[in-house]
Amino acid sequence: MAGAQGTTTRRSRITPEREAELYGAVLDLLREVGYDALTMDGVAARARSSKATLYRQWGSKAELVVKALRHQKPVRIDEIDTGSLRGDFRTLVSLNDDCRMERDGALMRGLAMAMHDNPDLHRAFHELLIEPEMTGLDRVVRRAVDRGEVSADNPALGYIVHMMIGAFVGRNMIDNQPVSQAFLTSYVDAVILPALGV
Amino acid sequence: MAGAQGTTTRRSRITPEREAELYGAVLDLLREVGYDALTMDGVAARARSSKATLYRQWGSKAELVVKALRHQKPVRIDEIDTGSLRGDFRTLVSLNDDCRMERDGALMRGLAMAMHDNPDLHRAFHELLIEPEMTGLDRVVRRAVDRGEVSADNPALGYIVHMMIGAFVGRNMIDNQPVSQAFLTSYVDAVILPALGV
Repeated sequence: MAGAQGTTTRRSRITPEREAELYGAVLDLLREVGYDALTMDGVAARARSSKATLYRQWGSKAELVVKALRHQKPVRIDEIDTGSLRGDFRTLVSLNDDCRMERDGALMRGLAMAMHDNPDLHRAFHELLIEPEMTGLDRVVRRAVDRGEVSADNPALGYIVHMMIGAFVGRNMIDNQPVSQAFLTSYVDAVILPALGV
Repeated sequence: MAGAQGTTTRRSRITPEREAELYGAVLDLLREVGYDALTMDGVAARARSSKATLYRQWGSKAELVVKALRHQKPVRIDEIDTGSLRGDFRTLVSLNDDCRMERDGALMRGLAMAMHDNPDLHRAFHELLIEPEMTGLDRVVRRAVDRGEVSADNPALGYIVHMMIGAFVGRNMIDNQPVSQAFLTSYVDAVILPALGV
């Protein structure tokens, strides 16, 4: 209760529309100049806001950037519940179209570089983006275990995120191609589901 | 024949011992200052050689660095042939001890950063290190197909390197731990072999 109240108070100064507009400005700037050259002054100018407002709402550049990334996620993973693990992965793969995955892939690779030298960004990225996604994916997979689709002691249960990272990083590094829905669908069917015994 | 002759001529000015010593100096410097700050002058000073010699033998900093990395690989992957795919992967995992994997992991992450801004390094890395390793791994897996261990139309055959990259990148990104022989063995047994139907 106290936590929810705290969040509401902090967020209450800004409308959801204004928040979305600010996040849009952050992502545009991030694509144009990269994380290191992005400044709170630059965001304030682009979004016709003030640096004081940005710091009051978000506390740091790292938090603002990661929340902007999180805001564009269309669906919470743990809300995906089609009744089968294959169906859930199909839905997960279909959330972002190929253009968007190609665009976001470039953004994510740039951020991965920046994280190397920015512990604040690394921490915010893990806490606000990676961990919630992992928790969501874990719920999806738990439901498959509860349905009896996956054995509770299948050792690949601990490596689902590793397998997925391999798809994204390997597609770029080895195949030198952007990740697409067709590629991810094929990878899920060839690697992830068989490893889980589905 | 001409190709082999060309290689011999180019290499003949330097003994294998001297070559190993030079590569050692390159890797030491690389760990100390990183790729961007490493210079041919620095290598020449460290190895008591001349910049002219280095350029004559290796042509570029990117080639020198990647050949130094390749030189420390103890075994060619395609020479691994234990008679079973599981045994071949066990041997592959046992080639580098945990200390060395941790040390080389840091080096490789630094190089991955540098590759982002250095197309020469990216090209040399792919041609001289990634492609030969992929060809070697492909031979190992082909033998498993020929033995009937893996079905020739198993769709995971196209994703073995992706799965392996997921182990290395995911171990660092998600688990925040260095890759170890125990982790890789568990991952091979839980993910790679089941996906291949072994």
